[in-house]
Amino acid sequence: MVRGKQNGVQVRRLAERGVYDRATIDAILADSYLGHVAFIDDGRPVVIPMVVWRVGDYVHFHAANKGRVATVCADARVCISIAHLDGMVLARSAFNHSMNYRSLVIHGLCEVVHDAAERLAALEALTEHICAGRWPLLRPVRPNELAATVLLRVPLDQTAAKVRTGMPGDEADDPDWPVWTGVWPLHTSFGEPLADPTMPAGIEAGAPVKVS
Amino acid sequence: MVRGKQNGVQVRRLAERGVYDRATIDAILADSYLGHVAFIDDGRPVVIPMVVWRVGDYVHFHAANKGRVATVCADARVCISIAHLDGMVLARSAFNHSMNYRSLVIHGLCEVVHDAAERLAALEALTEHICAGRWPLLRPVRPNELAATVLLRVPLDQTAAKVRTGMPGDEADDPDWPVWTGVWPLHTSFGEPLADPTMPAGIEAGAPVKVS
Repeated sequence: MVRGKQNGVQVRRLAERGVYDRATIDAILADSYLGHVAFIDDGRPVVIPMVVWRVGDYVHFHAANKGRVATVCADARVCISIAHLDGMVLARSAFNHSMNYRSLVIHGLCEVVHDAAERLAALEALTEHICAGRWPLLRPVRPNELAATVLLRVPLDQTAAKVRTGMPGDEADDPDWPVWTGVWPLHTSFGEPLADPTMPAGIEAGAPVKVS
Repeated sequence: MVRGKQNGVQVRRLAERGVYDRATIDAILADSYLGHVAFIDDGRPVVIPMVVWRVGDYVHFHAANKGRVATVCADARVCISIAHLDGMVLARSAFNHSMNYRSLVIHGLCEVVHDAAERLAALEALTEHICAGRWPLLRPVRPNELAATVLLRVPLDQTAAKVRTGMPGDEADDPDWPVWTGVWPLHTSFGEPLADPTMPAGIEAGAPVKVS
């Protein structure tokens, strides 16, 4: 991780936790399904959770054609926040409690992707991001489905990651306070798949169903 | 859950998934540690992940005194997005793929809490939200720690929840497409606690350490 080197944006609070290299940013995006997309609508801040995924140097999201997000975000400044909570950091004082996390704040101008091949490739990338190997097994996309979907993207060149790991800090003034301190890790995992009762008989959950 | 009844805000996209009753909103907040707080700074949308917790009719967050968030959000309009991803919804077509989730979008004017007793009670509520039973065990809060912390809150009276559960929908036109469909549930859980090596000897992880 490259810390403290900025790429057009800068972490302000606890700046030593700022990370700006693409490998770190890409790794956080690889673990991400939801981003919180902020925009200004009628002079007010709005933020909505959206499915996000990376293709090349852009984070993508999609929205309903003629819906508010597609209308307001197209060619407008947006900001996207993504965060993974990795653990609770339990310290001796309430003030020194913290959380371990990996987060991204992406600033940029939101572009609409118009090219048909790019749009299809991005939807394939989304499907494969959610469930690797699944795209070729699906019923092919229909023109009316493509027409209903607006594909949006934001370049990653104004992105800051912020990462906290490890034990509570700043406890030197309370070394002997008698309370358990440490980290309670938080994990996200997939459970057993629940089969759709309308599925034709004889189809088993297998490798191409496996969520990556 | 009360669906379709609005309280000053309204879910626009897939409005049938909108939920506005306080029991649903409170239940989502009870499961939440991070919210994504959006505000307008210098004419641009900004969204940052923050620790959020409910006290009474308000969602709270805290920020460093004199920092950007405290300065820009005080007495300003903000919007907070919270989302729990509960599962991947795998359909027969890419278009019908979805996710199961519980989300909140909270709109409102952000107030600074000045009253000393309210501030301390809210910090206690935060600690207990993260780890029930922990507050009385901690080294008491010091005046300089309180002075370093700005407590902010947003009323919950302009909040919309949006919830999706269950199987893929809208598959009637592809009933026989031979691919596994269903839901892959996603779970978040706490792992084994990792002890701080600087902790005095003889302290065991126990009930008051347990993350709720």
